[in-house]
Amino acid sequence: MNNIKYAPIGVFDSGVGGLTVAREIMRQIPDERIVYFGDTARVPYGSKSKSTIIHFSRQIVHFLRTKNVKAVVVACNTASALALETLRPELDIPVIGVVKPGAKVAAEATKNGKIGVIATESTIESQLYTQVIHSHNPKAQVFGKACPLFCPLVEEGWLKDPVTVEVANRYLEPLLETGIDTLVMGCTHYPLLRSTLREIMGESVNLVNPAYETARELKDLLDEQGLSNDGKLEPEGSMHQFYVSDAANKFKQFANTILPFGVDSTQLIHIEEY
Amino acid sequence: MNNIKYAPIGVFDSGVGGLTVAREIMRQIPDERIVYFGDTARVPYGSKSKSTIIHFSRQIVHFLRTKNVKAVVVACNTASALALETLRPELDIPVIGVVKPGAKVAAEATKNGKIGVIATESTIESQLYTQVIHSHNPKAQVFGKACPLFCPLVEEGWLKDPVTVEVANRYLEPLLETGIDTLVMGCTHYPLLRSTLREIMGESVNLVNPAYETARELKDLLDEQGLSNDGKLEPEGSMHQFYVSDAANKFKQFANTILPFGVDSTQLIHIEEY
Repeated sequence: MNNIKYAPIGVFDSGVGGLTVAREIMRQIPDERIVYFGDTARVPYGSKSKSTIIHFSRQIVHFLRTKNVKAVVVACNTASALALETLRPELDIPVIGVVKPGAKVAAEATKNGKIGVIATESTIESQLYTQVIHSHNPKAQVFGKACPLFCPLVEEGWLKDPVTVEVANRYLEPLLETGIDTLVMGCTHYPLLRSTLREIMGESVNLVNPAYETARELKDLLDEQGLSNDGKLEPEGSMHQFYVSDAANKFKQFANTILPFGVDSTQLIHIEEY
Repeated sequence: MNNIKYAPIGVFDSGVGGLTVAREIMRQIPDERIVYFGDTARVPYGSKSKSTIIHFSRQIVHFLRTKNVKAVVVACNTASALALETLRPELDIPVIGVVKPGAKVAAEATKNGKIGVIATESTIESQLYTQVIHSHNPKAQVFGKACPLFCPLVEEGWLKDPVTVEVANRYLEPLLETGIDTLVMGCTHYPLLRSTLREIMGESVNLVNPAYETARELKDLLDEQGLSNDGKLEPEGSMHQFYVSDAANKFKQFANTILPFGVDSTQLIHIEEY
């Protein structure tokens, strides 16, 4: 494979949630191959410090480079918020995260200028969503709210459970009071709670899923840089590859609920060695 | 410090929960010095695989050895259940975990022979509590139940919240139906939910906290092996030392709610290098 346009896209996340981003890429640009890495040994990232997130993300990018990826998508909101700007200058291939595309759409979608962001503690503390929204819409008011119980509830499978509804009511109440008309689901797990969030926020509030916007931005970026796969070269081996740092069955189970095909050949790697 | 009895005890956990074990050691054997390590960069361990838990635990034990500890206490139930037996033959100092002391007390405490164990998914799947209980009381019936939302709820600080009560009701209902008279709190976070657990299980059920029994077993072990600190040598530096793999403020905040004195001088180390 000499032509770089046939190289795969590297997509990584702290765990399985980033598969929602991989799924969007597969839908929107089906000719692109994906090498996915989920850091299941060290998940979650959401309450950890910036230096730890940078260290982990750097190892993962080093691993993805060994797979000759032509671009990297940071599918994890926390890593996008805390590590992306540090890693970008270290790389000679394009890197995009999920925060900027999501923030841009939210800034454009709001009519009353009031935007809510729900995300992990570390993402909220980073203030990156607020900064990017302000760069597009300086007058916007941004209300952030960390929702640390959402990921464990999704992983327990309690997507529409009364407990989850009660937790969501608690977290969202201060945002409802502000009168936001747009809410960014700033963690890859949260779109799986979409129907619960919709019920609490009401029909009139825009729910922004950064995964969708990220896949669109990736498509534009590949087109601009002449890196788009035209699908004319049959891939050697399987179209997509999946790697994890911990081989718990949970990854496959969760992956199979997200992706439209079975993730049978997930490979375990020692991420610390990269 | 030439005499090994003045050396510290190494205590480790996946994060902050093991401080409840450190606290019990400080209470029961106040002359002993502690070197505590919390793997806050890679927490939690509870849903990860055996090989990952062994790998992480081995690195931590290597780190603790650099502090010249005279014994190691695995304060994490998951690491005790999945890694301890693999690591013991690799070491020339005593190592004890929290599972065996907790299981022994439960086996002795039950009157009707029905024991419940609540713990992480990985601890329950390991079946170690069941095996050790059976070694003391072959006729006991052991009912395990993984409670993956308890740790996130404790870390959110919702100790007596209606949401926590509802989650606990859900998890404990199948155990209540079995008629157990003894319940092992098989994760270091769970004793912080003691009053909620007590309310649901009723006054007649024994709640076993392995932390207490572990400190007692440690005391006996040190006495037997002539390793007990007689307190006659003033320690150089501070009595106890605290190390973490991620320096998030959360550790200090949580530590200060558990320990009777401030944990000001927590030091960050790169655990992957051990």
